[in-house]
Amino acid sequence: MAFELTGYRGDALKVLKEAHATIGDYIRVIVNGNIYEGILIPRTEYADDKHILIKLKSGYNIGLRVSSGIRIEVIRHESKPTFTPPKLPEEKEGLPKIALISTGGTIASKVDYRTGAVEPALTASDLYGIIPELSEIANIKTEILFSEFSENLTPQHWKKLAITIANMLNEDLAGIVIAHGTDTMGYTAAALSFAIQDPPIPIVLVGSQRSSDRPSSDAASNLIGAALVASKAPFAEVVVVMHDGLSDEILAVHRGTKVRKCHTSRRDAFKSININPLAYVVLNEGKIELWSQEFKPRNSSKKPIIKPDFYEKVTLLKFYPGMDSKIIDWFVEQGYKGIILEGTGLGHVGKYLLNSLKKAIDSGVFVGMTSQCIWGSVNMNVYNTGRDLQAIGVIPLSDMLPETALVKLMWVLAQSKDLDKVKQAMLSNIAGEFSLKRF
Amino acid sequence: MAFELTGYRGDALKVLKEAHATIGDYIRVIVNGNIYEGILIPRTEYADDKHILIKLKSGYNIGLRVSSGIRIEVIRHESKPTFTPPKLPEEKEGLPKIALISTGGTIASKVDYRTGAVEPALTASDLYGIIPELSEIANIKTEILFSEFSENLTPQHWKKLAITIANMLNEDLAGIVIAHGTDTMGYTAAALSFAIQDPPIPIVLVGSQRSSDRPSSDAASNLIGAALVASKAPFAEVVVVMHDGLSDEILAVHRGTKVRKCHTSRRDAFKSININPLAYVVLNEGKIELWSQEFKPRNSSKKPIIKPDFYEKVTLLKFYPGMDSKIIDWFVEQGYKGIILEGTGLGHVGKYLLNSLKKAIDSGVFVGMTSQCIWGSVNMNVYNTGRDLQAIGVIPLSDMLPETALVKLMWVLAQSKDLDKVKQAMLSNIAGEFSLKRF
Repeated sequence: MAFELTGYRGDALKVLKEAHATIGDYIRVIVNGNIYEGILIPRTEYADDKHILIKLKSGYNIGLRVSSGIRIEVIRHESKPTFTPPKLPEEKEGLPKIALISTGGTIASKVDYRTGAVEPALTASDLYGIIPELSEIANIKTEILFSEFSENLTPQHWKKLAITIANMLNEDLAGIVIAHGTDTMGYTAAALSFAIQDPPIPIVLVGSQRSSDRPSSDAASNLIGAALVASKAPFAEVVVVMHDGLSDEILAVHRGTKVRKCHTSRRDAFKSININPLAYVVLNEGKIELWSQEFKPRNSSKKPIIKPDFYEKVTLLKFYPGMDSKIIDWFVEQGYKGIILEGTGLGHVGKYLLNSLKKAIDSGVFVGMTSQCIWGSVNMNVYNTGRDLQAIGVIPLSDMLPETALVKLMWVLAQSKDLDKVKQAMLSNIAGEFSLKRF
Repeated sequence: MAFELTGYRGDALKVLKEAHATIGDYIRVIVNGNIYEGILIPRTEYADDKHILIKLKSGYNIGLRVSSGIRIEVIRHESKPTFTPPKLPEEKEGLPKIALISTGGTIASKVDYRTGAVEPALTASDLYGIIPELSEIANIKTEILFSEFSENLTPQHWKKLAITIANMLNEDLAGIVIAHGTDTMGYTAAALSFAIQDPPIPIVLVGSQRSSDRPSSDAASNLIGAALVASKAPFAEVVVVMHDGLSDEILAVHRGTKVRKCHTSRRDAFKSININPLAYVVLNEGKIELWSQEFKPRNSSKKPIIKPDFYEKVTLLKFYPGMDSKIIDWFVEQGYKGIILEGTGLGHVGKYLLNSLKKAIDSGVFVGMTSQCIWGSVNMNVYNTGRDLQAIGVIPLSDMLPETALVKLMWVLAQSKDLDKVKQAMLSNIAGEFSLKRF
């Protein structure tokens, strides 16, 4: 068979041959006292000769180093190689129906082995095809909306995505999964949280930190977890589902307004800030464990509020020592209607910015304060700096994430430019953007 | 003892008690066939009751879920906390001499009980007076340089501070302590790390999160710890000394270029990013425990390099979806010579910024890339976006913190405006701003 042990050579090839294993077999590997079971998958042309690559039941790929004591057993021979072109499985009766919207990103990409770079490539149905476990969870309708790395998505994309989702809410779906690049997934999650309020079903964003054709890809496990949440979670909110830590089996479910990418490359990069994750997914048990009782419940008769517009003349300014106050003047001159400051500590900026901030506010610009600390809440009553900033009209935004505050202000200003209404909306807890305990 | 298992409850508390573990112990946890070893660290008041939190040797904290088969063993008990002020020889003649420079901030402030606000008030000698323990550690010379909250400090203040310190290096001092507001202490620490290279003695920044006349102030413990480090640490670097966690007795010593304020209000707000702290101070034993062997040693005969200037036409831009490329054009028009981008993920910005960035670089502006993820390293070879940005001349800055990159670029541009020299300097590891392991 052509794909018998594709890509394997040296020691790795030797031990696999001795075990009579071929690509696609379900094998057991015992090495250094640990036991791993999964499907033997092929290696790429760049592979070394010391590792065996298997896909665990959780969908996670791991590379196992061949050492002297390694033992390999074939548990189940597969009759066909895993290289079969993906086919959409037939609908199974009794399973919930979900939609999978592809926007691009690593989860929908493959490695270009010529340049070594990752390019957006896989379609939603490709993804579905290469992760057959999905067909046991739900009947999945797929749609390719964009094919962009998420750093290229703008508020215009958020709008299109929100409208696409809103239309799907009229269909009989158990949930919606959105495959998305991880770079700005937190921003999009916040945007959808405001654009689609009180949805009847879960809206689940999912990405991956390593592309699906690479060893140790988290694409399959994350998609399986997202499909589980979309199919049967009791909550109906906009959430992000990604790996929680070092365990292959546990994913965290983060509320869309409280989540942030906090590592450039780890698969557990996404963190809920100032709150616990809403739930965890235990992959090997197909189970969703709730971590909070405060959520909006799934209810198919709910009528969501759809407001998909975002006003783009809003900026996020991270303060730094010596920042030139003319930057603020420039935004006002350009017709910006909102500024989110990422101040220091409890919500401060240098006193040399006060005059420009006052001018901005007096001319009708909303200025809100968040903290570059990321964790904790602003409190502008403790120090004189904070009191002075409040006196000129800067609005403290409690523990709202800077990124969420930016997105929310874009959304609020699309509803109204009236400063009083904007203030009121910015201080209302619309989509869990404030942690109730700390507000 | 009050802080024995701070923050733990429910199942997590139960299994830790059964293992006779306390906060700070080096423990082994075996769960789901995986083995983890690290220091048991306290949980916050908002923690759930199902996870045990340990700090791995890598410096990364992980939460381990308590499941039925979990096994916990204490490998090494840590010394038990009791708040005894450090005991030192009665003869003050034999004590080292250190300087305490006050710049303002909470550590040098008191509450205005009329308004409830905190104001800068205490002088360096006041501080010395209200913390008698200091007199047992060192003979201390005090100087008030500024009386400003740190959000008001600018690169001009960094210069004055660097010159003041440089002059003191000619005196016979064991170390220098700088009392500083916490808001921008990370920025100042980075600035001093570049301005004073290879100092003969430790230069220790210290602040507090609660003012010294308040109950639960961390001002005294932090100052005592800073004085200990200044007096007898084996390393001679610019460092930040602040509480490490919920234990009253343990302070962390962070390298000046790798530290960041990561919480608005907690006393353990400061974190070393991508590396371990350089050392810990065990207050009740008056001891400094090294956590790294890679440091510049104390050596009174060393001649430091003093370069106290900073060029201010440098900006830090945090990218967000839809960011207007005209912002970049404006900085170029204003004569800015450097831009540090805080991009997404591995170091990306939207493709709609490419033209303006190219124009900026072509006109001689240095553009460097860091990540708003905070943790991890940029890697602009993985995705096409990163490769495109490199092709127009954007320089990836590995795992340098965005704030440190800004300060470093201000410092580098004060030495030379030649773009090649600037690039070379930005990519050199001058003061530990790159983690060697990851570079």
